[in-house]
Amino acid sequence: MAELVGNVLVGQSGGPTAVINASVAGIIAEALNHECIEEIYGALNGVFGILQEDLVDLASESQQQIRALKHTPGAALGTCRFKLKKPADFERVLEVFKAHNIRYFFYIGGNDSQDTADKISKLAQQQGYELRVIGVPKTVDNDLSVTDHCPGYGSVIKYLATSVREIACDSESMGQGDLVSIIEVMGRSAGWIAAGAALAKRRDHPHDPPHLIYLPEIPFDQAKCLEDIKRVLKREKFCQIVVSEGLTDSDGNYVSADAATDAFGHAQLGGAGDFLKELVETNLPGVKARLAKPGLMQRAAAHCASKTDADEAYLAGQGAVLAAVRGENDKMITLVRGDADHYTCETGLVALADVANSVKKLPREWINEDGVSMNFQFLRYAQPLIQGEVTLPQDSGVPVFARLEKSRIDKALAAYIA
Amino acid sequence: MAELVGNVLVGQSGGPTAVINASVAGIIAEALNHECIEEIYGALNGVFGILQEDLVDLASESQQQIRALKHTPGAALGTCRFKLKKPADFERVLEVFKAHNIRYFFYIGGNDSQDTADKISKLAQQQGYELRVIGVPKTVDNDLSVTDHCPGYGSVIKYLATSVREIACDSESMGQGDLVSIIEVMGRSAGWIAAGAALAKRRDHPHDPPHLIYLPEIPFDQAKCLEDIKRVLKREKFCQIVVSEGLTDSDGNYVSADAATDAFGHAQLGGAGDFLKELVETNLPGVKARLAKPGLMQRAAAHCASKTDADEAYLAGQGAVLAAVRGENDKMITLVRGDADHYTCETGLVALADVANSVKKLPREWINEDGVSMNFQFLRYAQPLIQGEVTLPQDSGVPVFARLEKSRIDKALAAYIA
Repeated sequence: MAELVGNVLVGQSGGPTAVINASVAGIIAEALNHECIEEIYGALNGVFGILQEDLVDLASESQQQIRALKHTPGAALGTCRFKLKKPADFERVLEVFKAHNIRYFFYIGGNDSQDTADKISKLAQQQGYELRVIGVPKTVDNDLSVTDHCPGYGSVIKYLATSVREIACDSESMGQGDLVSIIEVMGRSAGWIAAGAALAKRRDHPHDPPHLIYLPEIPFDQAKCLEDIKRVLKREKFCQIVVSEGLTDSDGNYVSADAATDAFGHAQLGGAGDFLKELVETNLPGVKARLAKPGLMQRAAAHCASKTDADEAYLAGQGAVLAAVRGENDKMITLVRGDADHYTCETGLVALADVANSVKKLPREWINEDGVSMNFQFLRYAQPLIQGEVTLPQDSGVPVFARLEKSRIDKALAAYIA
Repeated sequence: MAELVGNVLVGQSGGPTAVINASVAGIIAEALNHECIEEIYGALNGVFGILQEDLVDLASESQQQIRALKHTPGAALGTCRFKLKKPADFERVLEVFKAHNIRYFFYIGGNDSQDTADKISKLAQQQGYELRVIGVPKTVDNDLSVTDHCPGYGSVIKYLATSVREIACDSESMGQGDLVSIIEVMGRSAGWIAAGAALAKRRDHPHDPPHLIYLPEIPFDQAKCLEDIKRVLKREKFCQIVVSEGLTDSDGNYVSADAATDAFGHAQLGGAGDFLKELVETNLPGVKARLAKPGLMQRAAAHCASKTDADEAYLAGQGAVLAAVRGENDKMITLVRGDADHYTCETGLVALADVANSVKKLPREWINEDGVSMNFQFLRYAQPLIQGEVTLPQDSGVPVFARLEKSRIDKALAAYIA
């Protein structure tokens, strides 16, 4: 493969994770090792910024800031939920690439983003513009196919398992009267995140909290849920529930508080957690229910990130550069788990077309027969992903995060109306 | 003062904090130093357990577990929200004390608990039963009077300031279109907790998140709120709000989503956070709002506790024993801040009657004129309370907390129906 000399462009897309910037750091650090790479640019707000030619110079950032990216939540370059649709949008992307001699494009994102990356790569090939496109997986949802797991997932479930163990200490101690404590977690279409809360249980203590996990994979049944809760309350006097925001009934409709209580059609207030809270308080007299909804906190919780996850996100960024330099194109980096008993992980590659727009479901056989707890297969899968803690630099008691200079690259083209 | 020989009883009451067990650890550790103290008992679920004669032997717990109490959330002895009312209840408490030769009673709690402790002490004096009662302050709400601050407060605001800084990285990076990100925090009657989130701002960066803090101390005004949000969105493209659950309107009614949207009287779904979310989405077209409600997570977040707070909670426990042994009675331990520029803190004492049932409000002069941000006086007050991090022992990626054996003391009395 002939050496391809030119510039790098990195972009971030979709919902951020606690470690998405670690992949940017990995890309920058590795890019500096290769003489064929001249400039290292970042796209502000993903493809949206590329259309606007909003590029920044990453090589001019201080090494201190690049290092701090490893533990900085949010998307340091800005992200977007913008989907390129019109052929003219794709043409514009290539125009911008050509104007800035972008020969290496790394796109950090989930399903949609990998689809976008795939289309950009294919268009460049059609036009005979030499470009190497490598996707870097990212999503707290862990629903990308082919890769064993996604950078971002280990940190969100470490945070939630920690929080469940803490909140359970609190709920358990409340004494007198029964308490149902509910945590609603992310996961619109798959239960990976809710399932991960099962790591709060000690090994060989199946009755440890969380007592009940409600997953999108198991159609929700009110009567069974109330029986489940009563059984746990009888045994424990409190019941710790983790529910996925994507919980659905047997018809596939989202379970939400409004559907159950209000036929007047005002704005949706509550989701699955509010629904469960109301279900309990309406049907179980004398039982109190408390709801926690960490929302964005869960995917931004860098202070409780998994070191394994942060390291793998960095590795995925490095791997993307290495693959591109050695001639790969139109692929996504995957994380590949070793076969040994001891957990190992290295990077692999998959064609972008094979991951774009497909979703990896939580396997039904990893959920126990009762539908509300996870078996050893899931635990064996998830446990290694939350190992190790990250120590954040602190200033006056609060963590300090990277702040990029974002020095702008001069625009070479006329403005574009997307 | 004559030496008083007998047993110690420790109880916990009200909502737990991340460091409430550190005070138990301080009491046990200090009690072991004094020969006049024979046995060290714990009351399960506070006064509720005392009525039932549910006592456990704390001296028989392993030192490992007592040490682990320093970083264990929840109330390790169990807590209660039970209020002694009938004179017969107070009589019963003294009967139990006499049956087990309890001569030192340490009650860790907030306003109500200090009131209970005061009444128990006074009844013992009336009956000529020699008993030394010392209260230990505890509350995330920070609303106990006389004491400079309460153990538990520093940890909850360290956690929230950390979370606000993290979530702001996430929200800021979302680009395209305006985003209002809301965190609803605890604080039914005072805004101490919401105010503490202001510590997320860097020094001399008044425009840092949180951009707007809505406190119970400032009557809520919808029109002004919408103007505030629009102003921030114009400047920043996103707006990070922290709102206290105890937000009230100018008539003193709690601001809640249901009051605003539903006249049909079904169960209350949403609080102040839901209300703000709906206010934004209804009145600001094109603006998205996201809500996080950490709920119990915030007061249980031992993994993000303030070392200063944990140390002071322990010190308060030690101080209670020292005071009682030297003859003090019917007092509560206070935290007293030194006058020096450099923060120092030691324990003091106040008559229980002077703290029982009174509430310390957030001073209006610590809130800026705009009503939605805190000035340097508050920051100077709160900053020292969040200094230092606690390192938790981990097992397989999740923190390990104390689990007491709770070996029961034989009951000496007939059962009691409260």
